[in-house]
Amino acid sequence: MGSQYGKIFRITTFGESHGHSVGVVIDGCPAGCRISLEHVQAWLDRRRPGQSHLTTSRQEPDQIDCLSGIEDGVALGSPITLLVKNQDHKKQDYEALAKVYRPSHADYTTESKYGVVPSSGGGRASARETIGRVAAAAIAEQVLHQMLPELQIFAWVSAVKDFEFKSEEFSDFSRASIDLSLVRCPDAESSKKMISIIEEAKSRGDSVGGQLTCCIRNAPVGLGEPVFDKLEADLAKAMMSLPASKSFEVGSGLAGTRLFGSEHNDLFVRDGDRVRTITNLSGGIQGGISNGEDIVLRIGFKPVSTIQMPQQSLSRDRETIEFTAQGRHDPCVLPRAVPMVEAMATLVILDHYLRNLGSRLR
Amino acid sequence: MGSQYGKIFRITTFGESHGHSVGVVIDGCPAGCRISLEHVQAWLDRRRPGQSHLTTSRQEPDQIDCLSGIEDGVALGSPITLLVKNQDHKKQDYEALAKVYRPSHADYTTESKYGVVPSSGGGRASARETIGRVAAAAIAEQVLHQMLPELQIFAWVSAVKDFEFKSEEFSDFSRASIDLSLVRCPDAESSKKMISIIEEAKSRGDSVGGQLTCCIRNAPVGLGEPVFDKLEADLAKAMMSLPASKSFEVGSGLAGTRLFGSEHNDLFVRDGDRVRTITNLSGGIQGGISNGEDIVLRIGFKPVSTIQMPQQSLSRDRETIEFTAQGRHDPCVLPRAVPMVEAMATLVILDHYLRNLGSRLR
Amino acid sequence: MGSQYGKIFRITTFGESHGHSVGVVIDGCPAGCRISLEHVQAWLDRRRPGQSHLTTSRQEPDQIDCLSGIEDGVALGSPITLLVKNQDHKKQDYEALAKVYRPSHADYTTESKYGVVPSSGGGRASARETIGRVAAAAIAEQVLHQMLPELQIFAWVSAVKDFEFKSEEFSDFSRASIDLSLVRCPDAESSKKMISIIEEAKSRGDSVGGQLTCCIRNAPVGLGEPVFDKLEADLAKAMMSLPASKSFEVGSGLAGTRLFGSEHNDLFVRDGDRVRTITNLSGGIQGGISNGEDIVLRIGFKPVSTIQMPQQSLSRDRETIEFTAQGRHDPCVLPRAVPMVEAMATLVILDHYLRNLGSRLR
Amino acid sequence: MGSQYGKIFRITTFGESHGHSVGVVIDGCPAGCRISLEHVQAWLDRRRPGQSHLTTSRQEPDQIDCLSGIEDGVALGSPITLLVKNQDHKKQDYEALAKVYRPSHADYTTESKYGVVPSSGGGRASARETIGRVAAAAIAEQVLHQMLPELQIFAWVSAVKDFEFKSEEFSDFSRASIDLSLVRCPDAESSKKMISIIEEAKSRGDSVGGQLTCCIRNAPVGLGEPVFDKLEADLAKAMMSLPASKSFEVGSGLAGTRLFGSEHNDLFVRDGDRVRTITNLSGGIQGGISNGEDIVLRIGFKPVSTIQMPQQSLSRDRETIEFTAQGRHDPCVLPRAVPMVEAMATLVILDHYLRNLGSRLR
Repeated sequence: MGSQYGKIFRITTFGESHGHSVGVVIDGCPAGCRISLEHVQAWLDRRRPGQSHLTTSRQEPDQIDCLSGIEDGVALGSPITLLVKNQDHKKQDYEALAKVYRPSHADYTTESKYGVVPSSGGGRASARETIGRVAAAAIAEQVLHQMLPELQIFAWVSAVKDFEFKSEEFSDFSRASIDLSLVRCPDAESSKKMISIIEEAKSRGDSVGGQLTCCIRNAPVGLGEPVFDKLEADLAKAMMSLPASKSFEVGSGLAGTRLFGSEHNDLFVRDGDRVRTITNLSGGIQGGISNGEDIVLRIGFKPVSTIQMPQQSLSRDRETIEFTAQGRHDPCVLPRAVPMVEAMATLVILDHYLRNLGSRLR
Repeated sequence: MGSQYGKIFRITTFGESHGHSVGVVIDGCPAGCRISLEHVQAWLDRRRPGQSHLTTSRQEPDQIDCLSGIEDGVALGSPITLLVKNQDHKKQDYEALAKVYRPSHADYTTESKYGVVPSSGGGRASARETIGRVAAAAIAEQVLHQMLPELQIFAWVSAVKDFEFKSEEFSDFSRASIDLSLVRCPDAESSKKMISIIEEAKSRGDSVGGQLTCCIRNAPVGLGEPVFDKLEADLAKAMMSLPASKSFEVGSGLAGTRLFGSEHNDLFVRDGDRVRTITNLSGGIQGGISNGEDIVLRIGFKPVSTIQMPQQSLSRDRETIEFTAQGRHDPCVLPRAVPMVEAMATLVILDHYLRNLGSRLR
Repeated sequence: MGSQYGKIFRITTFGESHGHSVGVVIDGCPAGCRISLEHVQAWLDRRRPGQSHLTTSRQEPDQIDCLSGIEDGVALGSPITLLVKNQDHKKQDYEALAKVYRPSHADYTTESKYGVVPSSGGGRASARETIGRVAAAAIAEQVLHQMLPELQIFAWVSAVKDFEFKSEEFSDFSRASIDLSLVRCPDAESSKKMISIIEEAKSRGDSVGGQLTCCIRNAPVGLGEPVFDKLEADLAKAMMSLPASKSFEVGSGLAGTRLFGSEHNDLFVRDGDRVRTITNLSGGIQGGISNGEDIVLRIGFKPVSTIQMPQQSLSRDRETIEFTAQGRHDPCVLPRAVPMVEAMATLVILDHYLRNLGSRLR
Repeated sequence: MGSQYGKIFRITTFGESHGHSVGVVIDGCPAGCRISLEHVQAWLDRRRPGQSHLTTSRQEPDQIDCLSGIEDGVALGSPITLLVKNQDHKKQDYEALAKVYRPSHADYTTESKYGVVPSSGGGRASARETIGRVAAAAIAEQVLHQMLPELQIFAWVSAVKDFEFKSEEFSDFSRASIDLSLVRCPDAESSKKMISIIEEAKSRGDSVGGQLTCCIRNAPVGLGEPVFDKLEADLAKAMMSLPASKSFEVGSGLAGTRLFGSEHNDLFVRDGDRVRTITNLSGGIQGGISNGEDIVLRIGFKPVSTIQMPQQSLSRDRETIEFTAQGRHDPCVLPRAVPMVEAMATLVILDHYLRNLGSRLR
């Protein structure tokens, strides 16, 4: 269990990092939506390794294949199956995994839970697992575009290690402008600084973490369910299900906990026909339901666990060993996490949009 | 939709804050567990309003009734229904709600989503909704106690506004010792400071927020599913579904994003028969699966939206008005959020424990 | 698990037959629907025991209470909780249940599965458990009436024991006309015959079974999902989940298996703007999806297991005993099964209607 | 929606009959089970077309590929993906489908529901869709074999058209002995008669239906949940979700509705340590829960809709036309339905077995 997401637009991802392929089946894609596989490929290209010297040198073309559910560029209403074959196996890189519990990896917990040791060590715990999510989200985005043409979802790197790029204002950010930066930070000066931090860590075989900010713009009012399936709760789950995520904030987030109520409340005002708020510390969600303002999230990612430095650990037969990782891995997950975060936000929004169709008599 | 939680130990909460009653139905409680309703009542007493001058003066005895599923103190395996009648309605307090969108409340979003205006204004968006969760968790805790007698789940207030109580070490904390403090902070000095911050805000009709830390101790290795239902992802959803929560961190959390990988990795060591880690920046979860170390969470809550100060807002017919709240409300949600956080953690752990029973051939 | 039904209009029933109360929580009722509790009461009155000498003499007023989700006769969109208190306990009737496995009852299986012996013997296995279903269906019907005003769902007794009332044509049947008959068969002559069969069995302390036919008229084209959630599959599950049901047929049913394909196919014709079929052996469903013709089901019910005749059995300590039932029970479940079958059909249709809202781009 | 089955052993089937491939993803297979793909292939060989002159001459090798979830013959606990490529497309056979609503097929309902016309006409409504189910069941059977080595599930053809093979006793039936018959009826004389009925119909381009009986032997006591998820209810849904099924009976079935209660009750007796029943009209299930006796089901299938005879119908532009099917299709679905019925029974039993693990304190 655990490889499924969504109540109506329901996806199941599959595939081991070093097996035959990784992919996804989508059950519940509305029929009649026009679907371009080129668009799916473009998302995967934003996610794939080897895009720059800041990411792992593992080379995977990550070419998408569609096995079912789409005919002549239109969704049939039946399950859509998308597949990416794994190509760049370097078996020798992973042989060591058969013998060691890598620190802060899933090797020990996977073995303990399942009683088996997959050749990739940590089983499904791999950034490669997110290919299925991103592919599904690239379909979801096309569905949303046909139902909610104004909706925009974009994320950017807002911190690398302890360097933060703060932006009160992001009305002119876009996915295209963000992607101009190797590190996916929309500010050129900050990008440079972030890149140098990553390069410095990489040069020593070390790794760094950081933070992303994600904005969901022009979501309709009314998405999210009170009680357990609040919109921010489902977004939190979605983001905390990404590999390496450690923190989640919505709206004012942690900083908001340090304000008085009189400072934190968002006052309602009329703006033509719309009800809006002067400030947006709520982050676009009130009582678990979207209010039409920007939905703003911040997600923190830890430094990548795989480092090219010697570390003490235990072998699988529980002897103390010294261990140095040999695989090719990202020194910083943040740039590639941008499309993953956008993907999860897209899946949450579409599912809640479809759930909301029957929420009232119309 | 949205009032259900859990895959196997599945609960459905119900009830409007100012209606007849609030409660919960539990489907999936293992038969044969001994269940004490006094224990449920004790949890509700920790949650209920009117416990001290730091919380709302709304007086609700919150007396639990059991309508089904338990006979002679034993769970039958059939749905358990628990009910608390609402008593302290002050209708006049809520009449104003029929006319105004309270700032940072769910009044506007509820009306927009459902097209109806419940007399409580924000419908299910109320701290009172959590009674069902806490009652269900008090059952879940008894089930867990019979399956995993070593397990402990406890939370405490670790920050009020910008005052933080930091504790590297909490091996001697317990629910009993925490409850000795009015503000549910286990440190006497810090408690005093927190109380004075809350009193000061209350005296001006204002409110404050803060942070909780929650520790899940002695959870078995192997809880949590890779990919979407990672243990921290389900915990994040559970916590972010609580009213007023704004941030979620696991293990090193936000601070961990500022470290190098070489500083952040938890090294494995042998401790008798057990595999343990020297540090615990992972917060007891690796690859989404518990590793046997303390599971440590931090949750931030915003300052309560209801303040006894005049605020500008819109009436439901969209005219600008000045509005001062008349209801009785907490100046700080943190002390009462402690049992809510413990409740959600308990529900997540039991559900994952039951899910895990079939995860491998035994 | 197992007390929940529906994906979107999701109900959870609860309550032991001889406990405090029985009832249901509905999560997912569309907000804004007008709901009359009198209508719910009227359904329960059709289901309740003691309606005539053909049913059990257990007297239960079955008075409905609504605890949440409805205000001023309108659904709020939050969970609707409906409750009926149990009143006519005759504890002595059930004391014997503590000691015996009643033949063809759930006493033995319940004890084996759960390891506990509820005072009602078979736990949730009781016709009384259906109160929650019927109450939920009476809400569902009102929702459907506001969304699909033409839809009609009605059932009648089409066989008692080996006496069959065959009706090729039932365009003039209605719930009102069917209810004119004590035995709920719309044909006066057949009713008499059925009643005499039941009376004869009852006079000897014996019981009889029979068959119901159910018609769902004016369902929209397009309900039902291909593959697992075919409309007839969900209807089959719904009907076979009713106590005492033994068989399910759709359309031509068992008789249809004896025809040639050339006899069985329903030929399409044009009828004004509509596509219709000349015959309806498909029973209104093709490929799992409704085609707009009458959906016709037949459900068989076994003779009631409780008979007032001595039977051999085993005591719970596994000694051979002779046993004669003392409780008051129906000699034939069929008349009271009519509203239960209508209830299940109503729940299936509404849930599929709501599921279908997102099935295509509109 | 609708392509998923199971709560814990959860499968999602995918693939259009005439697209790239058909297959299944299984989420929730217990780790550590030994899995042989040869066994999966053997099941598919029993299901595939072209086995004899009684079935369609469409030749599909139906070669299974495993893309994920199994390594070195052992289930990893991650999703298992199984794929069969489609090969024997005869596009010209299906071109006509673009233009006509075939009688009693899903062409009209599919178009009406989804607003699109897949090249296979009826979309997922195809016997080929069952490949995914059968492949998943072949995995499930291996899991069950390692958990419940005594369990047996086998089905046979018990009627073709109006010819019935009645068998009070089937203690010596087995899958192997049944498969000796071309028509999968374990009685040689009856087989001959059935074959001649099918041949006669085929020679005229017509088709016939019939009935299957399925026996689940040595299921443990306690499978099935009271109320909605009764074991017979889930079996009914499973069977009625198969293409062309029209009726479902459990135990005494329709015949049982014609008996008195005094004839129908199964009396309990002691058999060594076991509690058993003298008769088994209950069909191995009481109160929705298995009692350890043989679970006996009968499923009726209509005559195949595709016949090689001219029929009147409507074109998709709603003109009256005469239509004669050109594709290659089975004159009788029964022989190939045997493994499909066994597959669905296997999926239901495993899922309920896994659900039952947490049903009580152990």
